[in-house]
Amino acid sequence: MKLIDVDTLTQIISRTGLERFNLQLLQLLEQDFSHWEAFQKSPRHVTSYPHGVIELMPCANDEFYSFKYVNGHPANTREGKLCVVAMGLLAEVQHGYPLMLCEMTLLTALRTAATAALGAKYLARKNSRHLALIGTGAQAEFQAYAMLAQRPIQQISYFDIDPRAMDKFEKNMAASAVELVRCESVAEAVSSADIIVTATAAKQQVELFGIEQLKQGVHIHAMGGDCLGKTEFSLDVLQQCKVVVEYVPQSKVEGEIQQGNESLIHAELWEVITGKKSGRLNDHEMTFFDAVGFALEDFSILKLVYQLATEMNVGKDIDLIPQLDDAKDLFSLLKTER
Amino acid sequence: MKLIDVDTLTQIISRTGLERFNLQLLQLLEQDFSHWEAFQKSPRHVTSYPHGVIELMPCANDEFYSFKYVNGHPANTREGKLCVVAMGLLAEVQHGYPLMLCEMTLLTALRTAATAALGAKYLARKNSRHLALIGTGAQAEFQAYAMLAQRPIQQISYFDIDPRAMDKFEKNMAASAVELVRCESVAEAVSSADIIVTATAAKQQVELFGIEQLKQGVHIHAMGGDCLGKTEFSLDVLQQCKVVVEYVPQSKVEGEIQQGNESLIHAELWEVITGKKSGRLNDHEMTFFDAVGFALEDFSILKLVYQLATEMNVGKDIDLIPQLDDAKDLFSLLKTER
Repeated sequence: MKLIDVDTLTQIISRTGLERFNLQLLQLLEQDFSHWEAFQKSPRHVTSYPHGVIELMPCANDEFYSFKYVNGHPANTREGKLCVVAMGLLAEVQHGYPLMLCEMTLLTALRTAATAALGAKYLARKNSRHLALIGTGAQAEFQAYAMLAQRPIQQISYFDIDPRAMDKFEKNMAASAVELVRCESVAEAVSSADIIVTATAAKQQVELFGIEQLKQGVHIHAMGGDCLGKTEFSLDVLQQCKVVVEYVPQSKVEGEIQQGNESLIHAELWEVITGKKSGRLNDHEMTFFDAVGFALEDFSILKLVYQLATEMNVGKDIDLIPQLDDAKDLFSLLKTER
Repeated sequence: MKLIDVDTLTQIISRTGLERFNLQLLQLLEQDFSHWEAFQKSPRHVTSYPHGVIELMPCANDEFYSFKYVNGHPANTREGKLCVVAMGLLAEVQHGYPLMLCEMTLLTALRTAATAALGAKYLARKNSRHLALIGTGAQAEFQAYAMLAQRPIQQISYFDIDPRAMDKFEKNMAASAVELVRCESVAEAVSSADIIVTATAAKQQVELFGIEQLKQGVHIHAMGGDCLGKTEFSLDVLQQCKVVVEYVPQSKVEGEIQQGNESLIHAELWEVITGKKSGRLNDHEMTFFDAVGFALEDFSILKLVYQLATEMNVGKDIDLIPQLDDAKDLFSLLKTER
C-alpha cells in the first residue's frame, strides 16, 4: 500500500507539469462523468458541529473504490490553520484491499477547479474573455489556471473582503499573461464578466449580486454555497438561469438550489456531457453551475495520482494491512516475540 | 499526524500485555457506551458487490471523530488474502485535523471480542464455566481470551467445518489453562454450553441450532449474521430469548433481527449498561446479543491506541496535511522549486 504525502504529491505534479496534470484530470473527469451510471453514488456523510463539519465522501465503480475525509472549519484560519484539510484512499474492488492513501487538501483544490473548467467547457460561451473571481482565498489560483486552459481569458477581475487575500492572488498570478483587475466591490468585478466564479466563505444566506448587474450570456460557477444554510445567491438568479448540478440528492441539500426545489434544475452535469440534455444553446442564455463538490471528482483525481505515482515509482510503502501465511491465523500477529 | 502500522500496533499491545490491553479496552467501551447520547451515530455506509462489501463506519462526540474503512470479501482466503482488512482514523473535532491513522484489521478483532465480553458481563450467567465457539476462524482466539477474562470459563468446546481452522485454534490456545474440547458437530459443541459464540462466515440464511438443543440460561453471542441476507438463527430462537443489540437503525438491516421486526428487541446495549433496561434477571432466562459491530467500538479502541501510542511515544510521523505560513496560500505548495 502506497502513501502519497504532501511532498510526494507536489513532486508528482511538478514532474508532470501543472498544465498537463490539469488537462489529464479534465479528460479523466469527463470520461468518468460520462460513465455516470456505472458508479455507486451517495450524498456525502456529514457530521455537523456549530463550528464546522467533518465529511466522508465515498464513490465506486466495479474496479475502484474511493473515499475522502474532509473537514470544513471556517474559523481555522484565525489560528493559522487551513479551513479545509483532506485525505483520501483508493482501493481495488476485487479483494477490497487499499492501494493508496493520499493527501487530498491540494487534490481537492485541483479537482474542484477542474470540475469548474469541465462545467465551463459545456456551459460558458466559447469566446469568454473576461473572468471574474469573487473570493480570492485558497481556491482562487486553481480556478483561474483551470479556466485559462479552457477559454481564451484575457482579463481577470476580482474582489475579496480581505485585501491580503487579493495581494496573495496577485503574487501567485504574476507569472501568467492575463490582465489582473483588482476591484473595490463585487459589483465592479462582475459587471462585464463572461464567466463568474464565486468562492466565498459565507456561512449563511447572502446575495453576492443580482442578475440585473450581469452581462447577457454570462456563465456563473457558484461554489461557495456548499452546505446546508449557506448560499450566495437569491432564488431570482437561479430562476433566470439554466441551472446544472453534479448530483441532485446531494445538491438539493447543500447547493444554491436548497432555497428552491428540484424543478429549478435543468440537468446533472453528466447528462450535459453525454448529450442527454442540452448545454449552452446560444450566446444569450445565462448558465449556472451550482457546484458543491461530488465524490466522483475525488475518485477521478485519486485514480490519476495512483497512475502517475505507479509510472514514476514514487510513494512510500506503508504496512497497514497484515501479511499472514494463514489468512485465518490473525491471532499469530500477537504471538510474535520481539 | 501519527501513523500506527501493523508492527507499531503489535509492539503497543505486546508492551501493554494482551490481558491489560483487553481490560482497558473493556473499561473504555463500557464508559463510551454509557455516554451513548453524547455521540453522533449513523448506520455504516455500505457499498455492495456480488462478491463482497466495502464499508465506512464513522462515529463522533464533541472531542473526537473516528471512522473505519473495512471490507468483507468471503472468497479472499482462497487466494491467501484476509476476508476482512481495515484501517481507521482518529481526528480532533475542534479543528477537524486528523491525529492518527491506524491499522484496524487486528483492532477490529480485538474490539469485536471486547464488545462480546462487555455483553457477557451484563447478559451471561456469573457462573458460566463452559464456552462454545461455532466457527474457529480469524476471530476465535480473540473471543476466547476476552471471555476467559470475563467469566470463570473452564472448558471451551468448538466446531468448524474446516479442520485446519480447529488445528490453528488449538495451537493458539495451547498456552491457556482452559480445557479444549474439539467437536464433530455444532450440536455436540453447544449442548452443555453456558455461553455460545457464533462466528461463522455464512453467506446466507442458515440455522446453526435450535433452542431445544441448548441448556437453560444460556447466553448466545451471535456475530456471524452481520449483513443483509446473512443470518445464523431461526426467528424461533430470537423469540425465546431476551435480545440485545448495539444500535437499532443498523441492526435491523444487518443483524439476526432483520428476519423479524423491532418488537423482538429488548434493549440496546447502552440501555442495559446504564440500567435504563434490565440485563439478565435470573439464571433461567436465555439471552441473545445480536452483535453486528458498531462504529462506537472502533471509536473507543482508536482512542485507546492513540493514548497508548502517545504515552509510549511510538508511531511514525506522516505528512498528509500541508503546513502553510499563510493558510489562504495553498497554491504556494505548487510553486516550490525542487
